Amino acid sequence: MTATKVVAFGGGHGLSASLRALRRCAPELDLDITAVVTVGDDGGSSGRLRAERGGLPPGDLRQALVALAGDHPQTRRSAGLFQHRFVTPARAGIPVAGGVAAPAGDGRGADGLLHDRDGLTGHAVGNLVLCGLMELLGDPVAALEHAGAMLGTVGRVLPMSCQPVGIEARVRGADPDRPDEVRTVTGQHQVAVTTGRVESLRLNPETPAACPQAVEAVGAADWLIFGPGSWYTSVLPHLLVPELADAIVTSPARRLVTLNLAAEKETLGLSVADHLAALRWYLPALEADFVLADSKAVGDPDPVERAAESLGARLVLAPVAVIDGTPRHDPAALGAALVPVLGADR
Amino acid sequence: MTATKVVAFGGGHGLSASLRALRRCAPELDLDITAVVTVGDDGGSSGRLRAERGGLPPGDLRQALVALAGDHPQTRRSAGLFQHRFVTPARAGIPVAGGVAAPAGDGRGADGLLHDRDGLTGHAVGNLVLCGLMELLGDPVAALEHAGAMLGTVGRVLPMSCQPVGIEARVRGADPDRPDEVRTVTGQHQVAVTTGRVESLRLNPETPAACPQAVEAVGAADWLIFGPGSWYTSVLPHLLVPELADAIVTSPARRLVTLNLAAEKETLGLSVADHLAALRWYLPALEADFVLADSKAVGDPDPVERAAESLGARLVLAPVAVIDGTPRHDPAALGAALVPVLGADR
Repeated sequence: MTATKVVAFGGGHGLSASLRALRRCAPELDLDITAVVTVGDDGGSSGRLRAERGGLPPGDLRQALVALAGDHPQTRRSAGLFQHRFVTPARAGIPVAGGVAAPAGDGRGADGLLHDRDGLTGHAVGNLVLCGLMELLGDPVAALEHAGAMLGTVGRVLPMSCQPVGIEARVRGADPDRPDEVRTVTGQHQVAVTTGRVESLRLNPETPAACPQAVEAVGAADWLIFGPGSWYTSVLPHLLVPELADAIVTSPARRLVTLNLAAEKETLGLSVADHLAALRWYLPALEADFVLADSKAVGDPDPVERAAESLGARLVLAPVAVIDGTPRHDPAALGAALVPVLGADR
Repeated sequence: MTATKVVAFGGGHGLSASLRALRRCAPELDLDITAVVTVGDDGGSSGRLRAERGGLPPGDLRQALVALAGDHPQTRRSAGLFQHRFVTPARAGIPVAGGVAAPAGDGRGADGLLHDRDGLTGHAVGNLVLCGLMELLGDPVAALEHAGAMLGTVGRVLPMSCQPVGIEARVRGADPDRPDEVRTVTGQHQVAVTTGRVESLRLNPETPAACPQAVEAVGAADWLIFGPGSWYTSVLPHLLVPELADAIVTSPARRLVTLNLAAEKETLGLSVADHLAALRWYLPALEADFVLADSKAVGDPDPVERAAESLGARLVLAPVAVIDGTPRHDPAALGAALVPVLGADR
């Protein structure tokens, strides 16, 4: 029996939860996991590396690698290293000669950019490793393959495009004082935190080339999984890469959409059903087989069921949130919910 | 038969050559290699990390790890990553938004310090990995053990002390215009490049605590190897750490001194025999069994032989330099010269 090939699309924390769930099912279902990751981040450590060094923003790629890192104590420790974020020495309790002024948090300002200029503060070690590997090898796919080997990953991580992209949105009411005005909001971070209503989304360049290995993985997949994640900045961008969109539509794979547990800033005002409609809006030919949602978070299931049906999909409800009430997926619960879906006969 | 335990002392390129030679002999002689590395660097990437973040300067530790890295393609690539130095994007041919002014070389100025403030420029990736591991684990020995596992090292790397040290020298004629004036030169980098005559050397703090695992390795060793390397800044500092000096003198191990191929700036005016006298000057109880020197570089062997005898050592001459005439040890030739010495019965 050959392995079941699963391709999971996303960006930051949502993709991370999806991958952690998938790796829990991997032994039982014999899964071969590929993560395809957005490359639009322009905030924090990733944004700074991207602006200053010109490669792919590494943060979301790092999160995906760490989510798939092996269970051996050595690879767990390397994963901890990848996640270690340099804080200002004063915050880390490190005595320094001279002393360094301490910015707050990871050094990210209100605009999501890193303003602290003390070299390392705010960078995760894994971001620097990925940045170094991409420079050294001149190929993000080879760099991610090597980083995956360093972490003993279960599965592999690919970028949606080998070139960084910009994310731009036309947003109604981006300025709360002018609720009817539509303006362009530029940059993934700004789009992610806008509280206006996103009316349209585009990439810059508008039609970036897809990563060839990602296109290939989609064509060979048994399952394509979309979400959870920031809908406009982590999920929908994949559908805006023409070659990837074509591959998604023409792949013989079955398709699963995992819905979010709560609206984020960027999707304020969007119902759960609206999330599904947005997928169809940006890729009209998209059909799905299953929509997975949290039993509690979904509220009244009827409109969600109808929205799922309009994608050709069956709604599956399961308890997939962490039990403390925060809107985060529990990898174990999500994994348990995925087993009957991914393991079902066609 | 148990392995022959070898402890090699040094700092930068000299220790690296010694370790590369030892690992070539390791299979034939069944060597168990431990590198003990100075922690006085205050220039370049290491100096900047040390000043800004307060941990051990990582550069010499990184060089030692890389010299011992495994031969598997994956560990060779990780070693390449450790050595990859971030240059300014313009120099690396990386397009950047905005553009960044390009400093020369690794960003190190005439004073050996890094003045370029663009975050990463001048740092080797391995320095950042070591810095992150030391912060994450709070223990340089555990950090080096993990980095060694990442690189599949043949043997292990330890710091001479778990605290960074300063290096200070009283130097006659540090100012070429005042050849008789003796002044204090502070900092490993400044001592290494002084062209005056070093009259005395001290550490700051003057008696740092030794790394306990290094003391233990010396006590359990079959061989202790000193040099090659910058004599004042990479070799002699070990003898100034009281617990390490005690362990060296009382260890049942045999002792080998590998001489340099040419005087460096810091040792201008010092003859080959003077190098041996300096060892005895800083650690009067030190005795050695063998002194290994390059047949050509040593010139007239008589004074060197007498200096070796004053340490209780036999002089061994062998062709150990690279054949292009630059004063660098050839690891293969040095390894070939070490086999009969280290393999000889007591």
